[in-house]
Amino acid sequence: MSGPRLAIDTMGGDNGPAAPVAGVAHAIGQHPDLAFTLFGDEAAVAAEVAKYPALAGGLVAIAHAPDTISGEDKPSQAIRRARTTSMGLAIQAVKDGGADAAVSAGNTGALMAMSKLALRTIPGIDRPALATLLPTLGKHDLVMLDLGANTECDAQNLVQFAVMGAAYARIQNGIARPTVRLLNIGTEELKGTGELREAAGMLRAAPHLPLTFDGYIESDRLGRGEADVVVSDGFSGNIALKTMEGTARFVTDLLRRAFTSSFRSKAGFLLSKPALHLLRVQLDPNNHNGAVFLGLNGIVVKSHGGANAVGIANAIEVAAKLARENVIARIVEDLAKVSTAPVKGAA
Amino acid sequence: MSGPRLAIDTMGGDNGPAAPVAGVAHAIGQHPDLAFTLFGDEAAVAAEVAKYPALAGGLVAIAHAPDTISGEDKPSQAIRRARTTSMGLAIQAVKDGGADAAVSAGNTGALMAMSKLALRTIPGIDRPALATLLPTLGKHDLVMLDLGANTECDAQNLVQFAVMGAAYARIQNGIARPTVRLLNIGTEELKGTGELREAAGMLRAAPHLPLTFDGYIESDRLGRGEADVVVSDGFSGNIALKTMEGTARFVTDLLRRAFTSSFRSKAGFLLSKPALHLLRVQLDPNNHNGAVFLGLNGIVVKSHGGANAVGIANAIEVAAKLARENVIARIVEDLAKVSTAPVKGAA
Repeated sequence: MSGPRLAIDTMGGDNGPAAPVAGVAHAIGQHPDLAFTLFGDEAAVAAEVAKYPALAGGLVAIAHAPDTISGEDKPSQAIRRARTTSMGLAIQAVKDGGADAAVSAGNTGALMAMSKLALRTIPGIDRPALATLLPTLGKHDLVMLDLGANTECDAQNLVQFAVMGAAYARIQNGIARPTVRLLNIGTEELKGTGELREAAGMLRAAPHLPLTFDGYIESDRLGRGEADVVVSDGFSGNIALKTMEGTARFVTDLLRRAFTSSFRSKAGFLLSKPALHLLRVQLDPNNHNGAVFLGLNGIVVKSHGGANAVGIANAIEVAAKLARENVIARIVEDLAKVSTAPVKGAA
Repeated sequence: MSGPRLAIDTMGGDNGPAAPVAGVAHAIGQHPDLAFTLFGDEAAVAAEVAKYPALAGGLVAIAHAPDTISGEDKPSQAIRRARTTSMGLAIQAVKDGGADAAVSAGNTGALMAMSKLALRTIPGIDRPALATLLPTLGKHDLVMLDLGANTECDAQNLVQFAVMGAAYARIQNGIARPTVRLLNIGTEELKGTGELREAAGMLRAAPHLPLTFDGYIESDRLGRGEADVVVSDGFSGNIALKTMEGTARFVTDLLRRAFTSSFRSKAGFLLSKPALHLLRVQLDPNNHNGAVFLGLNGIVVKSHGGANAVGIANAIEVAAKLARENVIARIVEDLAKVSTAPVKGAA
């Protein structure tokens, strides 16, 4: 049986097309049932493909795209180039049914705008949200959204994000009723913005939703495994996500300084190296790569711009898993439960 | 010459009055010129004071306060008890001129509300902001504000925070024109909320301000030493600050797991212990304790609720330094430069 068919924007990101093609080779080694179409400059992509025996023999299709979206392109400019760019054509393949999911390491704003225009939102969803999995000290990864697709959100948006995040957590972690919390600057009922308090009221008034709403969470608890899903507006979510990345790097930089501060500590470092390698693996953003735009009629996964082959392969895995598990049908199903319930009425 | 006179709320926080009194003993050992009045339950405070030879001989005054603000008290309830609580009386001492600064580890919302009511804001400042120093990999600490005093802020608030933060950075780091950046989810001009873009425009249009405005900063760069001051609304600032704390703890928890994962790594840990101790010191929130409400006619410093003696001593040091350097007069001086310039006109 053949697995999900993936459309890859090989030109996006800091390291295209080398890293995306290397990522495809890596992914196909682990999941030989995946089918790929690589969008990009045909000659450049073919030259990269030729480097990998795993990709030999026409296992992957190459689709020529004469143009590339750059990191500087504004979303409004990008959408006019949907039919000529590797990013636009990869999304178009999802729309046309030629692919089950698209993966791009390119410009987030352009990817969001193009995806929204081509795929449209699921009925019942006003805005898509960018969701990712984050490591925790608990049993499961945390689903966090929105990470930057929507700078400002109203209560209704946040409730929709909660439903979509829960659908993702159910697929990812196999929990029937994921615990959902709203990111806030305190856990008392009166804390935070009016939108947050309103969303909390709506979620509390909707026990029929396939999730357990557990109030607010503060951002120092995100890694403790105390929620399956954390919902925020895109501004706060992006601040939290990037602060995590920056702080993890900050601490490991201090750690490096500590280890090189004396001969004795250098010796200790050498002894501890295998254990510290594990730490590095756990903290490497490539190992948690792949954020998905939830709420569209199609799966589009955004990779870190600087991802390496392993990072791209992880983003591909996220896309493949969501396609296999049919995330969109599941969200549609859950939304049906919302719309027959007084969630909107609570606004 | 006698140094700053400090009013200490000894009953606030998780460990009052033991930790605050221990903190005073610690601080007086390092700065014998400081004078203290300890507000709290007289018998309980006296019993703690008796434990420290450094505090013997009437070196510190005890002022009885029959009541304590708890962590659950709402700001609106707390302000009615300004005349009977250790927190309220410590602030009152600053207002009456009996103390140069107050320090409390109690309820942040109550401390903010009481301080604002008693001390009022400096003319030209609409709202006070909570500011703290954060460690960086650069030469200087970073001044960051607002950390939670104001959930929502307009452009004018953010510009005022920039001026106050720059005054703090000048005192703390001795830089004539501190570099100020606005926290945002991207560095491009069009990123972020309308308030942020408007504040950026106002700061760009005000080159006479005693600071260098350098655009936006993303939260993954906060620890890199790329700014002297980072300004945000209180919601985003609180999210960033608490994410830093949580991530630092997350990474050190992973590190502990790594070190105890095998006999070999345990041996490595023992060898590296002195270096790792340095890392722990650098990451211990007690060593960066003490956030100040800038913009009031008086210095009020907020300590972490869970601070130990060293943490309280650091908060005392922040308060003493700001009092010695006359931060309020400096902010008033800088604001005069703002009000003679077209900053408001740019709004």
